[in-house]
Amino acid sequence: MLGAMQDWTMRITHVIDAAARESGSREIVTRWADGSESRTDWAGIRADALKMAQALEALGVKKGDRIASLAMNHSRHLVSWYGVAGMGGVLHTVNPRLFDDQLEYIVNHAEDKVLLYDAAFQPIVDKMRERWTTIEHYVCYDPADGFDGLSFQSWIDEQDGDYTWVEGSERDPCMLCYTSGTTGNPKGVQYEHRSTVMHAMAGLQPSAFNFSGSSVMLPVVPMFHAASWGLPYAGAMAGIKFVFSAVNDPAVLHELMIREKVTDSAGVPTVWLAHFQYCDAEGIDLPPLSAATIGGSACPRFMIERLMKNGTRVQHAWGMTETSPIGTVGGPTYDWDELSFEEKVDKTAMQGRPIFGVELRTVDLDDNVTELPRDGKTSGTLQIRGPWIIRRYFKAETDACNNDGWFDTGDVGIIHPDGTLQLTDRTKDVIKSGGEWISSVELENAAVGCPGVAEAACVGMPHPKWDERPVLFVVKKPDEDVTADAVLDYLRPLIAKWWMPDAVEFVDDIPHTATGKISKKDLRDRFADYTLEG
Amino acid sequence: MLGAMQDWTMRITHVIDAAARESGSREIVTRWADGSESRTDWAGIRADALKMAQALEALGVKKGDRIASLAMNHSRHLVSWYGVAGMGGVLHTVNPRLFDDQLEYIVNHAEDKVLLYDAAFQPIVDKMRERWTTIEHYVCYDPADGFDGLSFQSWIDEQDGDYTWVEGSERDPCMLCYTSGTTGNPKGVQYEHRSTVMHAMAGLQPSAFNFSGSSVMLPVVPMFHAASWGLPYAGAMAGIKFVFSAVNDPAVLHELMIREKVTDSAGVPTVWLAHFQYCDAEGIDLPPLSAATIGGSACPRFMIERLMKNGTRVQHAWGMTETSPIGTVGGPTYDWDELSFEEKVDKTAMQGRPIFGVELRTVDLDDNVTELPRDGKTSGTLQIRGPWIIRRYFKAETDACNNDGWFDTGDVGIIHPDGTLQLTDRTKDVIKSGGEWISSVELENAAVGCPGVAEAACVGMPHPKWDERPVLFVVKKPDEDVTADAVLDYLRPLIAKWWMPDAVEFVDDIPHTATGKISKKDLRDRFADYTLEG
Repeated sequence: MLGAMQDWTMRITHVIDAAARESGSREIVTRWADGSESRTDWAGIRADALKMAQALEALGVKKGDRIASLAMNHSRHLVSWYGVAGMGGVLHTVNPRLFDDQLEYIVNHAEDKVLLYDAAFQPIVDKMRERWTTIEHYVCYDPADGFDGLSFQSWIDEQDGDYTWVEGSERDPCMLCYTSGTTGNPKGVQYEHRSTVMHAMAGLQPSAFNFSGSSVMLPVVPMFHAASWGLPYAGAMAGIKFVFSAVNDPAVLHELMIREKVTDSAGVPTVWLAHFQYCDAEGIDLPPLSAATIGGSACPRFMIERLMKNGTRVQHAWGMTETSPIGTVGGPTYDWDELSFEEKVDKTAMQGRPIFGVELRTVDLDDNVTELPRDGKTSGTLQIRGPWIIRRYFKAETDACNNDGWFDTGDVGIIHPDGTLQLTDRTKDVIKSGGEWISSVELENAAVGCPGVAEAACVGMPHPKWDERPVLFVVKKPDEDVTADAVLDYLRPLIAKWWMPDAVEFVDDIPHTATGKISKKDLRDRFADYTLEG
Repeated sequence: MLGAMQDWTMRITHVIDAAARESGSREIVTRWADGSESRTDWAGIRADALKMAQALEALGVKKGDRIASLAMNHSRHLVSWYGVAGMGGVLHTVNPRLFDDQLEYIVNHAEDKVLLYDAAFQPIVDKMRERWTTIEHYVCYDPADGFDGLSFQSWIDEQDGDYTWVEGSERDPCMLCYTSGTTGNPKGVQYEHRSTVMHAMAGLQPSAFNFSGSSVMLPVVPMFHAASWGLPYAGAMAGIKFVFSAVNDPAVLHELMIREKVTDSAGVPTVWLAHFQYCDAEGIDLPPLSAATIGGSACPRFMIERLMKNGTRVQHAWGMTETSPIGTVGGPTYDWDELSFEEKVDKTAMQGRPIFGVELRTVDLDDNVTELPRDGKTSGTLQIRGPWIIRRYFKAETDACNNDGWFDTGDVGIIHPDGTLQLTDRTKDVIKSGGEWISSVELENAAVGCPGVAEAACVGMPHPKWDERPVLFVVKKPDEDVTADAVLDYLRPLIAKWWMPDAVEFVDDIPHTATGKISKKDLRDRFADYTLEG
């Protein structure tokens, strides 16, 4: 019975071919690090990707080889996504914010053959060059005048673009992203052509990125973060206009958003925090975006409120490098029109609903096996499975998921009857007090609402009687002098009595990971000798 | 490198599982033929589908067997879509409007084992029963009191629903639809699990059905027409609310649309024509739909204008049974806001743009090989390929497409630079006059705008000098007496001089096919002796 319908291999080359064919003249704008701007379009991206594929082959790169990029968001980085996949290679997008040891480890572990990099990261290249043992060629995306190495555009312009994409299995790898875990070496997640195409198709839908030809997206999420959430693929499928900025200065982003009539953006919450501060300082309105996809870490309530009041739909999303990354996305549910503004904010503050393809469940925090009810109350370890969810880390000997495909996310969450996911903590940060669980994240989120508090982190500290008790570490706002009692008074009506922190400690700063999240491991290390009395 | 991401077989069972899990309480409303109504939800549809799968196995139905349905749109038909696919069967949705010989041919050719039918079609069953040689069991969906055969709901309610979906290849067949061509026997198009899942995922996007959980769809397109355009699958993926009506009386549809807060509908243009007439006769407004997907045949300009003025987005779509069926869908293009109302109507009157996965091209009408430019001017035979496009008809010995996958649609069209498809005719109806092509459809579309003209069909008639010349057959509106000269005067400013029909013939009626399209074959047969003088 096979063959009633056509064979059609899910390869990323179909994505760029479709973009160039159906939306060839739709613009791709780049604001470069030096302040200059350039414009190309989907036809131009494909034409350059074909030349890049030839150029890689001319360097001796073979199908399956890894090509690294150390770059911000711009059109040449986009060309590389399609050029590398088009010649059968695997693009390894390196996070330039990693520590030296991590940078050394991942490039050597990936056995990257070529490194494509932004001039801004020349110091990293200079510093790491001797430690990177497999890289044979360095290509700079945006060299200044007088650069004597390989310059990306000249390098590909030596080719004529008369190239036929490499074919292969839809299960071939196309991209490699390392997770910067807080313990041990980073682990590589390898995306496949099939998983990438399915993930992007799912991403188009109104309940995810809501992409059509009229969308104009400025993705602030870096192209080195979990495939930039798949936006460069989904955007090509829908033929959207992209506006890239190689710098994340809010003034630059704001000006681009207004001038290029940007309708959609995507990024972590801190991006919006900076944008709010910029607009407030300038006394100007937020850009009139239709939608903002916010993920990477939980979006604070005040941010949701302000964006919603600005007429911007908040698509609060959750995912991980291991999940390609879209797991859940928030958006108007079917009862939306019946909700009050407060209820809409409540719902948006959760992490949204899984998109088709992804399956979630929560299991008991203690035994990690017993499946929990989807009752909007019971919290447990969040597990996920589906076609764009990791099975095995790069070069690992065992699977990262169990035999039924369930991958343990390390997140603690609650699933509501309507499918909405509400994350409450990380499994390693949740605080066990007297046999009951306290969410460190909920405590932090409550505490940052207190006047005078700039940032808060909650950690479970050993306690002789209760096993662990929450301690709140607080960074004060500049020139404001909030007291511990004021913080506790503020918290009291917001949380259960037994959740109240045993102590509030003021610190000058809270440590962060390379991806900008609070590093509780570092905080625990810093306060290793901290004791609570019974 | 395989296995970096999870194995996940694209089976339709994932679709109904996701709908029940994530949108279990989202309603499925049915207005039955007898005027009664029932309500279930996605959890209920899945529960019944599990029982139906058991009931089929209890009848001895095996994986790969064909199960026929002869039914309108309702929740039990929907249950059957998932119940049959869930036990590995193939649902053959039979068009009850086919002629007896066609009904006999397709059921026997499909070797259907079971027939599920509406009580309204009992006369067809009684008449055909002796001629259908393979059907072993008849099950009535909605029997009246006192019926002594198998009644669908009681039949499945004998099962406990404790069932595990049958697994298999994603290339297994799941549905069979016959095309009712105008010549030769109908041909069976077999949809696969994979093609169906991909087609449905693509259908969710804003440029196609634009489905999210808030969508409320009343599909007027019958479930026996090309998988109801894939709506029952895409709708399940997004967890939309469905409102089904087993009858197409505009008064019933109108009342349902208002009462159930329907946002979306889908159907052929004649459905809207009837709805317009109903609203005009009643002196009431059109229902406030957000969007109407219109396909099956070209949507007339006045219909587009009226719907757009009503605030309803017109998604003018093109497809065939052989294309699952979505090929192209119209909707706002990225320059939409810059267009005048007239320009928007012009654009919407075309057939829209291909959705990701589908590739179109036009080739020379004479040689059927030379690829034509996408210039918005040159018309040619439309060809299509992609993962949900037919390769081979059921039981055929040769492919329906060429070695590169190009399937000849039989349509004549123009592709515009922005990817928009504009259909101008059928290859067998286009008129060749003096070596140049005249579109019979464009002539008809122009002629129906003439006051007093109810319907028009244009056919090329043999001509001693020009090979063929257009003749226009016209049905007058009741009580209106339009003349041939009036029609020609009306046409003159609208079309090229050499396109002007050589004659206008008034007829009492124009023959139609079983799917409601003008049957030019029957018209040509009826006027086989017609002659034009040089």
